[in-house]
Amino acid sequence: MTQRLDATDAGFAAAFETLVNARRESDAGVRESVAAIVADVRARGDVAVAELTARFDGHELATTGWEVPRAERRAALDGLGSDLRDALELAAERIRLFHAAQVPADRDAVDAQGVRLGSRWRAVEAAGLYVPGGRAAYPSSVLMNALPARAAGVDRLTMVTPTPNGEVNPLVLAAAEIAGVDQVFRIGGAQAIAALAYGTERIAATDVIVGPGNAWVAEAKRQLYGVVGIDMVAGPSEIVVVADGANDPDWIAIDLLSQAEHDPVSQSILITDDAAFGDAVMAAVEARLTTLATERVARASWADYGAIIVVPTLDAAIPLVDRLAPEHLEIATDDPDAIFARVRHAGSVFLGRHTPEAVGDYVAGPNHVLPTGRRARFSSGLSVLDFMKRTSFLALDPVSLRAIGPAAVTLATAEGLPAHAASVAVRLGS
Amino acid sequence: MTQRLDATDAGFAAAFETLVNARRESDAGVRESVAAIVADVRARGDVAVAELTARFDGHELATTGWEVPRAERRAALDGLGSDLRDALELAAERIRLFHAAQVPADRDAVDAQGVRLGSRWRAVEAAGLYVPGGRAAYPSSVLMNALPARAAGVDRLTMVTPTPNGEVNPLVLAAAEIAGVDQVFRIGGAQAIAALAYGTERIAATDVIVGPGNAWVAEAKRQLYGVVGIDMVAGPSEIVVVADGANDPDWIAIDLLSQAEHDPVSQSILITDDAAFGDAVMAAVEARLTTLATERVARASWADYGAIIVVPTLDAAIPLVDRLAPEHLEIATDDPDAIFARVRHAGSVFLGRHTPEAVGDYVAGPNHVLPTGRRARFSSGLSVLDFMKRTSFLALDPVSLRAIGPAAVTLATAEGLPAHAASVAVRLGS
Repeated sequence: MTQRLDATDAGFAAAFETLVNARRESDAGVRESVAAIVADVRARGDVAVAELTARFDGHELATTGWEVPRAERRAALDGLGSDLRDALELAAERIRLFHAAQVPADRDAVDAQGVRLGSRWRAVEAAGLYVPGGRAAYPSSVLMNALPARAAGVDRLTMVTPTPNGEVNPLVLAAAEIAGVDQVFRIGGAQAIAALAYGTERIAATDVIVGPGNAWVAEAKRQLYGVVGIDMVAGPSEIVVVADGANDPDWIAIDLLSQAEHDPVSQSILITDDAAFGDAVMAAVEARLTTLATERVARASWADYGAIIVVPTLDAAIPLVDRLAPEHLEIATDDPDAIFARVRHAGSVFLGRHTPEAVGDYVAGPNHVLPTGRRARFSSGLSVLDFMKRTSFLALDPVSLRAIGPAAVTLATAEGLPAHAASVAVRLGS
Repeated sequence: MTQRLDATDAGFAAAFETLVNARRESDAGVRESVAAIVADVRARGDVAVAELTARFDGHELATTGWEVPRAERRAALDGLGSDLRDALELAAERIRLFHAAQVPADRDAVDAQGVRLGSRWRAVEAAGLYVPGGRAAYPSSVLMNALPARAAGVDRLTMVTPTPNGEVNPLVLAAAEIAGVDQVFRIGGAQAIAALAYGTERIAATDVIVGPGNAWVAEAKRQLYGVVGIDMVAGPSEIVVVADGANDPDWIAIDLLSQAEHDPVSQSILITDDAAFGDAVMAAVEARLTTLATERVARASWADYGAIIVVPTLDAAIPLVDRLAPEHLEIATDDPDAIFARVRHAGSVFLGRHTPEAVGDYVAGPNHVLPTGRRARFSSGLSVLDFMKRTSFLALDPVSLRAIGPAAVTLATAEGLPAHAASVAVRLGS
């Protein structure tokens, strides 16, 4: 059942660590199967992709065609009701603006020794976007993955999505059309990732592959990391809410449930300095749960991984937040910046009482693809940087080479690399 | 033997593709062994590390101690000759300056709808640095891996290096001291990577692990990607030199050899528009080879993977460079920027006739840890960003939530996520 912890209890540290480590991700034993699929697609290309798609998706590519024609994507967009279309367009515009501002500036300057030094950013040529089939096929996810690639300046954007019955969710197609996806293929699983990485006759190779997927997809991306760039390995969603007693318990309850409804292994944690407020939120969660069409999933997540932690002061919440390094952090207080300034590890932070996490999932602008499973300690949400790379550069002349070249000769000689030393020395006339 | 190719020959495209794909990296069949080592260290900690170190390095940790004491590191630095110490200090200072300027600016602004949006960069808490033993233990590599971590603001920097006879290269220790490494452990291999990732009784866990290593080290990093952050998987070194006929053939020859001497599977390619100059470089390489203490390695690399490609004009070099996406690119012409502006894929670029690649290996300032094996298509050299992560944040008030919240409700409802929709709607009073 949902845990209620008091940070001043003797057993708190151990109980909290249990909570931190509750959701071990397994590799589901797919390593060898995925390796075989990747090798097969690399060797046999489209023939392997078609066979694997028939086997795993029960879908004969010959029947519906490999690619979703442009007309079908256009029709999906035209078929949207105006409310939905306006909402997608608003979301797309705000996501575009936020990510366009992430494009880093180039550097090019001459230093005191006369050495010209710099770095230059360029987009990768092609990106692949994985979109899961079924329940997890979210149009918002298409926007969040495709638009940063477009903002980076990627030339070509290829989407793949499994279509067990040959059909694609029209909302996903409409979002792909809004985001300017170039091609959409009806394939999925590890075979789709391998096709995007190595290329086949029909599917041109890409340089970076992003997007969520099941254990097979995640393992294929991990195995192909280095052949292509990938986004971070994603686990189930999570939220930590830091809230004082001045909040409406129902608002906080529904925020906790908005993560719980994603997945039975999602995790929602409230940290509060007001025990009575914690009790009120607990009751409000129960009341809200029965109203949700997603009750089954949300109830399981809340029961198995949910927690309410009472701390003596909100200052004491900060080390707990950093230890959890949550994907999402809400700080529902009057002065949320005072707490935010002292938090080090979180994927995305939602400040104040009127910033529910869900507004960031859809329309605010920052990316909703965020590090999970304590990975906010070392990784960041998806950004244009995932679709760009930096080239450093140098230019010396005889004068600046004379200033710093002798040190390079000394170090190369000490490292036992005579050609390195000679390549500098020969230009110094020595 | 070293290939001589003419871009106007009928068979050029096929021969060039052979060159591009000549050096397939193998995983050396270590996947399962590494997985077993990682699991063992995770389960048994220091006991496993000690057993594996005895087995693979023939080194009993109990004899020399796990850690290199601070006094020994200090003594290594004090024992350097003044030329070498000055060279290391100059290199460290220039590397520090270049990387400090990479620390990204935070963002925090309110948009036209009244939504406050931003992102904030923070360093990871702890970084692990792998330094190979033996021939490849380079002090320059210690500086290039450790100083960006320090510039990022990492709290704790832990170095590991295998010491088969219990001793560490004093140059490596001196560089670690200059770079401000906190602890140095006498361990290596996959077991050291696993210890840095999961932590043991003696070795605190780190958040990011960087540094070059053999196939076991590379595979361990790949398997632990996601548990920790890692730098890019590194392959053997490579250089492409684009040069016109006005260069001294000996200068270009020695530049080609400065990569060839690294490894028998390094690759050095000259692209020139002057066939006679190409012949002169070929002859100069032969003459230089016999003078090198590294002749055996350099000759093997040059014979097996070296090439001289003659193109009708240097413009024709550009698509070849992009296809190779080389780690290092020298452009030895009077107007190198004209070519550089049109190149899309390269790790680091050296402009003009007085910028040998080796000056960048040691003292110029940009990082020498660069993408190899065509990975410059999608990845970048090591930088402070590898040791930092970005937290996005949002703050809305009732007015801005009214402006964009309804669209979030529409999208959440369309995606079948009622708690997401309710978390916004409840704050809109609907």
